[in-house]
Amino acid sequence: MDDPTLEADVFARGCLSRETLQSATSRWGVLALAALAESDYRFSALRRRVDGVSERMLSQTLQTLERDGLVVRTVLEAIPPKVEYSLTPLGRAVADHLTSLIRVVEEHVPTVAAARIEYDARR
Amino acid sequence: MDDPTLEADVFARGCLSRETLQSATSRWGVLALAALAESDYRFSALRRRVDGVSERMLSQTLQTLERDGLVVRTVLEAIPPKVEYSLTPLGRAVADHLTSLIRVVEEHVPTVAAARIEYDARR
Repeated sequence: MDDPTLEADVFARGCLSRETLQSATSRWGVLALAALAESDYRFSALRRRVDGVSERMLSQTLQTLERDGLVVRTVLEAIPPKVEYSLTPLGRAVADHLTSLIRVVEEHVPTVAAARIEYDARR
Repeated sequence: MDDPTLEADVFARGCLSRETLQSATSRWGVLALAALAESDYRFSALRRRVDGVSERMLSQTLQTLERDGLVVRTVLEAIPPKVEYSLTPLGRAVADHLTSLIRVVEEHVPTVAAARIEYDARR
């Protein structure tokens, strides 16, 4: 969406808001943001928290989130230098909604498991 | 997560809750759920609402959401038969959080656009 007089609409395929939504809800984006909602993280600790992500995928994910203004990368002066990731205010707002969503999903695992059994039995 | 005594944890790579989170936040899952939060939809109308989705991708997305108990597919008796999609109570809870997330993202398009300009200027 290059025309700022148009209202943002994630349902419109060219809208920047759809791109941002999709970075925030990408496979690793959603988990990286939810982890950063708990605390700031150094890269390697974040990678341990987001179980299963490769170094390359986490690095790409963080770059996309940083570019969209959701995450800040801070280089701390030290030898060797330390790099820390944290949320911007917008990143915090997005991550809070993701955390609420995650809570709903985690609480309803038995509902999902039962729905799958029922669905698979009908096939 | 096959052991129901373990607590669900999206950060654990084998947990069912992570799979469900990722269906709900997939590229088309998030938009299909947000559309169904507005109203029930017939397949073709939903496809028009979710601008850019192919018939095949929407169909796969809806099957995954139905299997996880987020969406219900109802065949209405008519000639020709009509198929309608709606949210389950769990789908509604998930979609409400996605809708709040979408609102934040849509409202902050100028912040994101400014962050991108700033990021790209630093490279």
